[in-house]
Amino acid sequence: MGIRVAVAGASGYAGGELLRLIAAHPELDLVAATAHSQAGAAVAAVHPHLTGLDVTLGATGPEALADADLVFLALPHGESGALAAALPSGVKVVDLGADHRLRDPDAWARYYGGEWAGAWAYGMPELAGQRGEISIATRVAAPGCYATAISLALAPLITAGAVSADDVVVVAASGTSGAGRGAKAHLLGSEVMGDLSPYKVGRHQHVPEIKQATGARSLSFTPVLAPMPRGILATVTALLYRAVDPRQVLAEAYADAPFVHLIPDGAWPHTAATLGSNACHLQATTDVDSGRVIVTSAIDNLGKGAAAQGVQCANLMLGLPETLGLAIHGVAP
Amino acid sequence: MGIRVAVAGASGYAGGELLRLIAAHPELDLVAATAHSQAGAAVAAVHPHLTGLDVTLGATGPEALADADLVFLALPHGESGALAAALPSGVKVVDLGADHRLRDPDAWARYYGGEWAGAWAYGMPELAGQRGEISIATRVAAPGCYATAISLALAPLITAGAVSADDVVVVAASGTSGAGRGAKAHLLGSEVMGDLSPYKVGRHQHVPEIKQATGARSLSFTPVLAPMPRGILATVTALLYRAVDPRQVLAEAYADAPFVHLIPDGAWPHTAATLGSNACHLQATTDVDSGRVIVTSAIDNLGKGAAAQGVQCANLMLGLPETLGLAIHGVAP
Amino acid sequence: MGIRVAVAGASGYAGGELLRLIAAHPELDLVAATAHSQAGAAVAAVHPHLTGLDVTLGATGPEALADADLVFLALPHGESGALAAALPSGVKVVDLGADHRLRDPDAWARYYGGEWAGAWAYGMPELAGQRGEISIATRVAAPGCYATAISLALAPLITAGAVSADDVVVVAASGTSGAGRGAKAHLLGSEVMGDLSPYKVGRHQHVPEIKQATGARSLSFTPVLAPMPRGILATVTALLYRAVDPRQVLAEAYADAPFVHLIPDGAWPHTAATLGSNACHLQATTDVDSGRVIVTSAIDNLGKGAAAQGVQCANLMLGLPETLGLAIHGVAP
Amino acid sequence: MGIRVAVAGASGYAGGELLRLIAAHPELDLVAATAHSQAGAAVAAVHPHLTGLDVTLGATGPEALADADLVFLALPHGESGALAAALPSGVKVVDLGADHRLRDPDAWARYYGGEWAGAWAYGMPELAGQRGEISIATRVAAPGCYATAISLALAPLITAGAVSADDVVVVAASGTSGAGRGAKAHLLGSEVMGDLSPYKVGRHQHVPEIKQATGARSLSFTPVLAPMPRGILATVTALLYRAVDPRQVLAEAYADAPFVHLIPDGAWPHTAATLGSNACHLQATTDVDSGRVIVTSAIDNLGKGAAAQGVQCANLMLGLPETLGLAIHGVAP
Repeated sequence: MGIRVAVAGASGYAGGELLRLIAAHPELDLVAATAHSQAGAAVAAVHPHLTGLDVTLGATGPEALADADLVFLALPHGESGALAAALPSGVKVVDLGADHRLRDPDAWARYYGGEWAGAWAYGMPELAGQRGEISIATRVAAPGCYATAISLALAPLITAGAVSADDVVVVAASGTSGAGRGAKAHLLGSEVMGDLSPYKVGRHQHVPEIKQATGARSLSFTPVLAPMPRGILATVTALLYRAVDPRQVLAEAYADAPFVHLIPDGAWPHTAATLGSNACHLQATTDVDSGRVIVTSAIDNLGKGAAAQGVQCANLMLGLPETLGLAIHGVAP
Repeated sequence: MGIRVAVAGASGYAGGELLRLIAAHPELDLVAATAHSQAGAAVAAVHPHLTGLDVTLGATGPEALADADLVFLALPHGESGALAAALPSGVKVVDLGADHRLRDPDAWARYYGGEWAGAWAYGMPELAGQRGEISIATRVAAPGCYATAISLALAPLITAGAVSADDVVVVAASGTSGAGRGAKAHLLGSEVMGDLSPYKVGRHQHVPEIKQATGARSLSFTPVLAPMPRGILATVTALLYRAVDPRQVLAEAYADAPFVHLIPDGAWPHTAATLGSNACHLQATTDVDSGRVIVTSAIDNLGKGAAAQGVQCANLMLGLPETLGLAIHGVAP
Repeated sequence: MGIRVAVAGASGYAGGELLRLIAAHPELDLVAATAHSQAGAAVAAVHPHLTGLDVTLGATGPEALADADLVFLALPHGESGALAAALPSGVKVVDLGADHRLRDPDAWARYYGGEWAGAWAYGMPELAGQRGEISIATRVAAPGCYATAISLALAPLITAGAVSADDVVVVAASGTSGAGRGAKAHLLGSEVMGDLSPYKVGRHQHVPEIKQATGARSLSFTPVLAPMPRGILATVTALLYRAVDPRQVLAEAYADAPFVHLIPDGAWPHTAATLGSNACHLQATTDVDSGRVIVTSAIDNLGKGAAAQGVQCANLMLGLPETLGLAIHGVAP
Repeated sequence: MGIRVAVAGASGYAGGELLRLIAAHPELDLVAATAHSQAGAAVAAVHPHLTGLDVTLGATGPEALADADLVFLALPHGESGALAAALPSGVKVVDLGADHRLRDPDAWARYYGGEWAGAWAYGMPELAGQRGEISIATRVAAPGCYATAISLALAPLITAGAVSADDVVVVAASGTSGAGRGAKAHLLGSEVMGDLSPYKVGRHQHVPEIKQATGARSLSFTPVLAPMPRGILATVTALLYRAVDPRQVLAEAYADAPFVHLIPDGAWPHTAATLGSNACHLQATTDVDSGRVIVTSAIDNLGKGAAAQGVQCANLMLGLPETLGLAIHGVAP
């Protein structure tokens, strides 16, 4: 018998990815998977790719989850706080929602609204000092998908003083699963295939999270919806402060990170190369014309951007090897 | 130290999928990966999704492979025969090419041309009697991708006498990776995105393989190229012979097959649900208007249709659990 | 001042395509465009591609439409009958819905349900005798999208006695716009991209329409949802009756049809080649193995399968050149 | 008999789009279409979407083209110069290649190499003063696709002194047809579907063209390949100089431009909305966090980014209405 885990919000895309990872994980045993409107349904009816997984969705609530050693919360933003507070303190929790990410109540109020639930350990093990903090935490806030792609590209450069923390400009495109599974007309396949379109320009809720994680002081962020189910490609540019090679800074920062790869000079990241994995591929250059450093970063928004990073955190919290049950290689082509 | 395996033809799509599966397999150790024009290149340069796999491609030839316990051949049709013949008899071989699939030299001559290399054990463990045959074989011919999807849908029904073996009609659509990695203008993304187009209508080389595997005597087969990287959806129809429920025949045939699932009544297979896995999802009905049985089948053409089925065969040949290192659940959405 | 036309149901995909075609048509002037829940909205807010078209959607009802010379109805099935009956007899009507297609009340009851609204002239000008019938009609029922693709492939062969009308087998795949613009979770981009899946197998409502239009007596029809916004590829097979060349039959049948093209021997239709046009591309062969004739047909489901064919009918009804305002060439790549 | 036009380089994507537009243009008659390796082929064999266009490709050379009133050149960069020089001075020329765009020989040498062919009138009618210049020109250099999308977004703001010409940051993603029709493995459908990847980061050849067209002095430009056949979405950010509303600047700049639309506040451009058209959709905002102006711009790279803009220039050069034969509305969904 392995470690008992539960998933709340198992009917969404991040929840489904958690179920897939847990089913293949050698040490984790799923003891409960819960949902709201889909409670009572078979997992395989909700997630056809999980055919063969004989589990029925329960109703989300503390009683359905309290029996687990560790609970993953994959709920809409604003719904984790109350549920987490109702779980016994002995139950470890990894929250994939935004509720416990921000340390600044004002930023929470401005970008999310509602009551601030308090900050937990921030679940990006590759940031300086975070692996240790996560390992001893009982409650961890897994980062947002855009925040992951952007912070992994930017944080070491600001930390090293290589680039200015002012006037950071980011354009990042995400596959449609990042927008969730709710039935909305503008997310229909007919609308998104063959289309690129920006949204929430200059007011995306990940801005304060990225600033907190990287130390950026001024951030222009344009998110773009891209015609693919998964993947984030972030293009991060910042003014070079001093004559360093950004590749060297990144190489040193991630020398011991099993999932974050600076790819060879001359190659550029492909989101497709990270599909289904916990990998992040990075490349950097200094722009000839503008003197800006340009770092590009590719992840799977449901992988390193959500569920797989959540399992990575859980592995650390449970004293397991960090890479257990997680793919380093994406499924391609 | 695990079992030593090698991959010839590692630069193509099936070869890349073999490398991915072997890297994650708990008992297999990659000792050689070879290619033709890409010999000398780093694997990660050829397959960006395998970033982190520190292997250099060697040149394809018996000397590079003879040191392995088991060799996977992922070569163009017509190139396996000579190479396999040059390998020591003690080296087990799984051939993903067509060279050793057909038992009828005339069918080989008609659909492939060149010299017939002789038939090996046919590597579809779910066909009646094949699991045992594969388990004792040292040389196994892994089936073609279309042949896999179609035979899993059809063979039990013909075997059970439920449908006529005459006048079988099949339309099957494949993702573009089934057409290989050669740079051809008609396979450019600009051409295939947003497009469906049939090809090789009435003369696809899998026709004799399907007839051999299923017992079909007359087969109309229309292959279609579909705008997605992976996946095959086969629609197989045949005249109902006697009043049986095709679902019951399929359920019984695959009761013990870990990768082949008859999905619940009312649902229909999705290729996306099998991405990256060794799963096959089946559904069947009897058509109201025509009295035909319609069976639809979804697989990943590089998974159950190529590399994953090859690993499934290798597991059996090596005395390992059939499911070791293989995903039952696809990566979705 | 041109001919006054109106569009009911202008917020959906077929309605939007009608607006686009009318805006570019040299003789048609849009005098009203109506919708249900979107009434009051600007057209460009509902259809971003129609930016620059300064029209506000009215509420669907006879008073909003009665002022037109010709009304296009692009309403959900079952809603055209009552509205058409309320329009003055002097107003010509082209109904893109199914309400007036079927001549058999029993078939209507079985496949659609509700009260049968009576049959109108069937708006496929390329069928034998239909061009004349449409030209003198005041009410025309435009065909369904699948019915168009399949009937153009099949009807001449049955009429010529070249193939058997029994045991026709059809598999046809459609882009997602064929499923409409309603917000449904299974039509989300995340679900459909990378996916092929059959639906309504053996019970699609176009079966009686196809049988009526072609004379087929037994029809097995499997529709498939394909990962592209537009396009239908139909594969139609039937038993060859007598030794004729199916290409010759089709070439003769469509010798004078400006939009239906038998493409050169050796080529196969591409749905992408018909995007945005009223074209239908056909190819036929006799299958080596089965003796079946296989005809494949490609159209744009919103073009020849809906709005463009509706405009083609309107041109005929109004005494205009059949091709006026319609594209023969698709937008590709 | 209309105006006689010819197309050199008719086998590529821009050439095919020119043929499509000319075939539907009420005043232009195609008298020659030429190619290199495809010379002798039927147009419909090279461009299946042009089925019905009964034209055979000739061999590219001055003699095949000199008989036209106006010649469109759609050749690889570096091949227009010599051919154009060999055409009689009475033949008007629109060059879709880069050869005659740059006024600075050093910039040509640095980004393209080879001999500079001299600058022609720059074919973007919406730039200040350009409509008049194009109207009296006999030789016009049509802009690059990225340059079009970016310059339309940026030029009026710099001209108006609204934003700084220093530190302009651009990320722009293009559909795959922008990479041409050459058979390259990294452009296969299997590679590009589901993938986003940057390329030529900080060294794209459109940088000097954009600076010349807009007055930008420092430009960081990251191009991205997106999984769709057509479309460019450009995100352009620049530091706000003075408190003006960027929307108002753009509205005034394009008040009389029939193809460039500032879309309503709250909406954001969709590339799909411009497919097959000559439209450009713009939206702008001032970023809350960074004080940067963000302008996004969507075009069809083969439409406003190449062939349609070329026809727009030809219309002006020939004294025809600017919009003749060109679509304002894209084909969507």
